[in-house]
Amino acid sequence: MQPLAVALGDPAGIGPEIVARAWAARHDENLPCFFAIGDRRSIEAVWDGPVEVLTTPGDAEAVSAHALPLVQVDDPGDIVPGDANLAGARCALDSLEIAVGLARSSAAAGLVTGPVSKAQLYAIGFTYPGQTEFIAERCGVARGNVAMMLAGPSLRTAPVTIHTALADVPRALTTELIVTRARVVARGLQRDFGIAEPRLAVAGLNPHAGEGGTLGREELDIIGPALDQLRAEGIAVTGPLSADTMFHAEARARYDVALCMYHDQALIPLKTLDFYDGVNVTLGLPIVRTSPDHGTAFGIAGRGTAHPRAMCAAIRMAGECAARRE
Amino acid sequence: MQPLAVALGDPAGIGPEIVARAWAARHDENLPCFFAIGDRRSIEAVWDGPVEVLTTPGDAEAVSAHALPLVQVDDPGDIVPGDANLAGARCALDSLEIAVGLARSSAAAGLVTGPVSKAQLYAIGFTYPGQTEFIAERCGVARGNVAMMLAGPSLRTAPVTIHTALADVPRALTTELIVTRARVVARGLQRDFGIAEPRLAVAGLNPHAGEGGTLGREELDIIGPALDQLRAEGIAVTGPLSADTMFHAEARARYDVALCMYHDQALIPLKTLDFYDGVNVTLGLPIVRTSPDHGTAFGIAGRGTAHPRAMCAAIRMAGECAARRE
Repeated sequence: MQPLAVALGDPAGIGPEIVARAWAARHDENLPCFFAIGDRRSIEAVWDGPVEVLTTPGDAEAVSAHALPLVQVDDPGDIVPGDANLAGARCALDSLEIAVGLARSSAAAGLVTGPVSKAQLYAIGFTYPGQTEFIAERCGVARGNVAMMLAGPSLRTAPVTIHTALADVPRALTTELIVTRARVVARGLQRDFGIAEPRLAVAGLNPHAGEGGTLGREELDIIGPALDQLRAEGIAVTGPLSADTMFHAEARARYDVALCMYHDQALIPLKTLDFYDGVNVTLGLPIVRTSPDHGTAFGIAGRGTAHPRAMCAAIRMAGECAARRE
Repeated sequence: MQPLAVALGDPAGIGPEIVARAWAARHDENLPCFFAIGDRRSIEAVWDGPVEVLTTPGDAEAVSAHALPLVQVDDPGDIVPGDANLAGARCALDSLEIAVGLARSSAAAGLVTGPVSKAQLYAIGFTYPGQTEFIAERCGVARGNVAMMLAGPSLRTAPVTIHTALADVPRALTTELIVTRARVVARGLQRDFGIAEPRLAVAGLNPHAGEGGTLGREELDIIGPALDQLRAEGIAVTGPLSADTMFHAEARARYDVALCMYHDQALIPLKTLDFYDGVNVTLGLPIVRTSPDHGTAFGIAGRGTAHPRAMCAAIRMAGECAARRE
């Protein structure tokens, strides 16, 4: 298998240090071979281990024996940890673009993305809601045909709507959207997670899943019909379920992924249970893509306190998914 | 301290069996003295231990040494476990009314309510949204001045809106409502839980608490002003916090209760962590009132599989709260 490409994300965030520390822990953490993409100095500013710039990604395995292998992007100039600026945003975007290209051309087995600052990216003219939509477009996949899944040791969840204000969620939900997301998630679990017949548990939107229509009708009018359609396609779905009783240990044993209607419905249980090792996986792409489920954490960047657990989990999961695709 | 009054709830639900099994486990579970209120035969149908009808609640302690003490209500006729009917609903309502009266008159130190069927109660003309509002009225307290809190070994949460369809939540939220709920919760933690200066963590409504207004404005327009007002009153509040990162172990250590904007935001983390021993506590009443945080479970009633853990937790917590009030 080729090495994985790990984009460092914003050079002033915790990306550089957690990638470096993941490399240092690669044996203990049982990580597949990977190389970093970004700025060498952003790592050296926060870590005193060895870094070696690659001339070709093919050298990553040999280099990784003694140093963190790195593909250098255009020098962003001086970067101070915690101090986000536009040069750093350009560096993050360059890293992402090169990483996607390498994964698309099979020079990398898959892609892991470090945390970026959306505010900084928007300031340099980035027009996508986030890295995921950018990657989808570069891969020639319509945004609607990819799905975000959060995966931790205890639970997998996939939100149908994501960065939507709560008041806009009910009108954003459609039967078609739920069906599309569920299909992408089901196929992704088959292809990348080796689950032949994935079981999807689908949450309701309202308290107690609407209690038969007395606490909201979306379960009857929108979610129920989506479940009928999915069943007719042979996808194993249950629901709409009362969201509050879906996530305890016994309930979780009954499904492979919980399809949730909105951001916090998916993220609250995931982060309650697996705060330090939640991985964000993008399903539906021609390439494997994961990222740690946390942000740039500018406030602690460079202090050596950022935990590399989620980055290690993201690299390990990308390697497992890539191996299943081979 | 007087004994606690435990209303059995719907006689065809799991209430009778879990109360009986709580009594049987009273030493192991370290439960305070309590007596049941309801129908004797509803217990005898599902449990073969000793039951003794009380002539006065004052005899409960003496009777409890050898039998489950019970205050008998009007005989509801034949009750089949799992088979809800109107006579059962009348029996549940009688039990509740008598239990409230005993707690109000200090013949009982507090009140624990078993699960009822709202559908059955509505069918006999019950006009309250739930038992809580009925109890509040019987105690002469306006509904708006009581607050529901869920308490488990890992977490306490209090929802600002409760049985509200998700689409109606944003317009139901007002600064005044949040302030009122927070006050009741803070006072309740002082009075019933012995926390001199309760720390309230207040959740945002939107993903990432609105991200400064880009994902919804309720944090800026409604929740923020409520926090300002609460701080001015000397209540220790933090927020509005991103709801997905509020409930992992480290975050939970920073507060005594999470004030949540809607049902599932409060109930998902509570039931994810403490599914089998979540207790529903009503704060703001002149009497102590708790209940196990689960329903009638008609589907398993009478099979002997219903778990008494939540009922034991509710009885124990009512005893602790009542002791603090003495």
